[in-house]
Amino acid sequence: MAKTDKINYSCPSGFPEFLPGEKRLESYLMDTIREVFERYGFTPIETPAVERLEVLQAKGNQGDNIVYGLSPILPPNRQAEKEKAGDSGSEERALKFDQTVPFAAYIARHLNDLNFPFARYQMDVVFRGERAKDGRFRQFRQCDIDVVGRGKLSLLYDAQIPAIIAEIFEAINIGDFLIRINNRKVLTGFFASVGVAAENIVSCIRIVDTAEKVGETKVKKALYEISLSESQVEKVWDFTKIKGTVDDVLNKLKSMAEILDNSEVLSQGISELETVISGVRNLGVSDQRFCIDLSIARGLDYYTGTVYETTLIGHEALGSICSGGRYEELVGMFIGEKMPGVGISIGLTRLMSRLLKAGILESFAPTPATVMVVNMQEDLMATYLDVSQQLRRSGMNVITSFDSRGVGKQLQQADKQKIPFCIIIGSEEAAANMCSLKDLRTGEQMKVPIAGLAGVLKQRLAQQLIINN
Amino acid sequence: MAKTDKINYSCPSGFPEFLPGEKRLESYLMDTIREVFERYGFTPIETPAVERLEVLQAKGNQGDNIVYGLSPILPPNRQAEKEKAGDSGSEERALKFDQTVPFAAYIARHLNDLNFPFARYQMDVVFRGERAKDGRFRQFRQCDIDVVGRGKLSLLYDAQIPAIIAEIFEAINIGDFLIRINNRKVLTGFFASVGVAAENIVSCIRIVDTAEKVGETKVKKALYEISLSESQVEKVWDFTKIKGTVDDVLNKLKSMAEILDNSEVLSQGISELETVISGVRNLGVSDQRFCIDLSIARGLDYYTGTVYETTLIGHEALGSICSGGRYEELVGMFIGEKMPGVGISIGLTRLMSRLLKAGILESFAPTPATVMVVNMQEDLMATYLDVSQQLRRSGMNVITSFDSRGVGKQLQQADKQKIPFCIIIGSEEAAANMCSLKDLRTGEQMKVPIAGLAGVLKQRLAQQLIINN
Repeated sequence: MAKTDKINYSCPSGFPEFLPGEKRLESYLMDTIREVFERYGFTPIETPAVERLEVLQAKGNQGDNIVYGLSPILPPNRQAEKEKAGDSGSEERALKFDQTVPFAAYIARHLNDLNFPFARYQMDVVFRGERAKDGRFRQFRQCDIDVVGRGKLSLLYDAQIPAIIAEIFEAINIGDFLIRINNRKVLTGFFASVGVAAENIVSCIRIVDTAEKVGETKVKKALYEISLSESQVEKVWDFTKIKGTVDDVLNKLKSMAEILDNSEVLSQGISELETVISGVRNLGVSDQRFCIDLSIARGLDYYTGTVYETTLIGHEALGSICSGGRYEELVGMFIGEKMPGVGISIGLTRLMSRLLKAGILESFAPTPATVMVVNMQEDLMATYLDVSQQLRRSGMNVITSFDSRGVGKQLQQADKQKIPFCIIIGSEEAAANMCSLKDLRTGEQMKVPIAGLAGVLKQRLAQQLIINN
Repeated sequence: MAKTDKINYSCPSGFPEFLPGEKRLESYLMDTIREVFERYGFTPIETPAVERLEVLQAKGNQGDNIVYGLSPILPPNRQAEKEKAGDSGSEERALKFDQTVPFAAYIARHLNDLNFPFARYQMDVVFRGERAKDGRFRQFRQCDIDVVGRGKLSLLYDAQIPAIIAEIFEAINIGDFLIRINNRKVLTGFFASVGVAAENIVSCIRIVDTAEKVGETKVKKALYEISLSESQVEKVWDFTKIKGTVDDVLNKLKSMAEILDNSEVLSQGISELETVISGVRNLGVSDQRFCIDLSIARGLDYYTGTVYETTLIGHEALGSICSGGRYEELVGMFIGEKMPGVGISIGLTRLMSRLLKAGILESFAPTPATVMVVNMQEDLMATYLDVSQQLRRSGMNVITSFDSRGVGKQLQQADKQKIPFCIIIGSEEAAANMCSLKDLRTGEQMKVPIAGLAGVLKQRLAQQLIINN
């Protein structure tokens, strides 16, 4: 064994891994998110980690991302094949850097086997050669949903998204949050109405979207630089600052659309926003949970209508914890068919690591076990195994201790793992079909008939749940 | 869009992906397996897909596997960095090809944060450059458990493994199966006792292990080739063919140990087998579910004691559907500490794909939704959204149809997705707070008050469950 102890066995930089208590928290979050996704009829898919490089590059510009290509490493006994195979094989393959492009490829691959509108969720890890930085990872999990139609897609799918976001973050229970909704047609339309040249509108949107990060001075400077006039810059800035209740903002927008020239796109955006907002309300989402924010646009160019960002109130520095929007041209790219979609993504690894650091989430106990059956006397092992199985059959997660040390050491071990209950059975108790149930949190110990143990434990665990909430 | 339609968007060969109904089946299998693992106190971990190449190669021989190394591909705007970074970066990294080596590294990385014996499960995908072949994949999911101790580990952990295997395959309900148990010390000890030279014992075990695949003639031939005498070959062959009930086999082994010379290792193996079998029985596993099979040994050299293979009765051609064993030197390799462990692995992707092909498993409905609320008149949408939310709040998975086509088309669409129930609400019904509930499997339709709908649906879904089982 000592031979290999010079190996650097640390995780490669940027590839994080969790301790068991953190992984259990992640599993819980994934279960919760998945449950909500399924409530709305989204179905799971999982695309391979690996795609053809040409597929991953189909969208063109991937910004600053380094994509990880694969280079097969032959085993020592097959080095002779190396020349034949080439270092990276004849067909270039790489690790997926997001779920969107592989999802588009998935639809193209299975077009005739899927039902449309197709609503899927996906909770895979993706890979990016990000530079190591706080909260930035090279492998991380994203929880995405998208619904995609053939040819057209009702705006009510856009309305479901805030309902889903609200339900997830209410269930995760990490405090108040605000879903900020906008529509890029509103921005595009307004900018056109105040005379911004068509070729500058996309840049204008991108600049406005950075306001929260860079502030007023820089945004205005950037707008001047793409040759907006002083009056246009002021109008654009004031527009994105429009505040008020959802109805206030809608009314202000409608009044503006009436007096502005060339405002068809603006009006269409407003009408879409109204439809979406009305749907969100009909889905029972409280007005406190969402607002119209004309300053958000999502950086990515492919969004064409509704856009979403979600902020954790009091923790705005975390940035958007869930965002997305409506797109028209994204999914159909492989098959040349119009397939509009709407979707959101939760960057789970980043979110969880930040919420843990901020103390908003706490990691779970390091074991799923809630009961440990102590090994008091080796000759009673048959009883310990039997009692453990009885408890498991009634749905409990049980560790049978095979520790040969004394009861005290075993209780310490259970306590260290935050296992709340221990079962101790000696000869006399075994003869009487009784056991001692010890609550490690209170130190309390009681005698319970083995036959009734599962019932008592279930009751106690349920009580604990109530106290903890 | 049409620009990119020349892209080959198919899955790279060997990287399979499932349709939604298959992925839902996989999720169900994973949930079931995970539930059983947690019942026994195994806790989840997930190591990154990527490790340092030196870590992955620490175990030495990886047989015939091609490992996938990573070669970062810079985006167009950063080509200048290419020389600095080198094609594969300064630190070589690769995709994991199993969970065992990364698990050993995980323990080394977190030694002081883990509780021992450390029992973990892991359900990740791994990557191998396998040649494309039926049922062989380059990316596939393995569901592994291992429990690892520092210095020593009770044999009762070995006894828990068959209980866990039995519980999983009973829950998955794929027919009768047989857990074949052996102990490599029994083989090693017997081979030594009949005079096989020490340096030939590992080869002898490896040859015996191939019996099921290659047959008697080839096994005997291979044994002659490593210079066993005719008498030794016959003894070895007869030994691995010993049959009978568990107690028969144990008794036969004990009688042999008594009359053989130099049989300490054999006796130790028999004693370990007895302890394990007794534990398995105390855990309530039926004698029908397991046997002692002296012909199995697991090919891998690192197993040192108990070994397991599981056969699906009537589908022996599938090979072992779950196997593993006890090892001594594997996990401590990075830190030079003795850390014995015992574990098993279920090759889920391979198992599922074969069981689907053999018709033993069937894929699920393509959506988790069990109810569709039909869009009969656009002006009642607020009602449809509200009814959908009521049903979701009582735990049902609901699709609200936003389809603008007629009711018939929508019912067809629901039927195609195997959604059993549709809710149809027209003006009159809405006014009376009623709805029509249509069971698409029977065609039956009934009027139900909206307030009582969730209750009726739950009852019907529960009935359906009973019928299906």
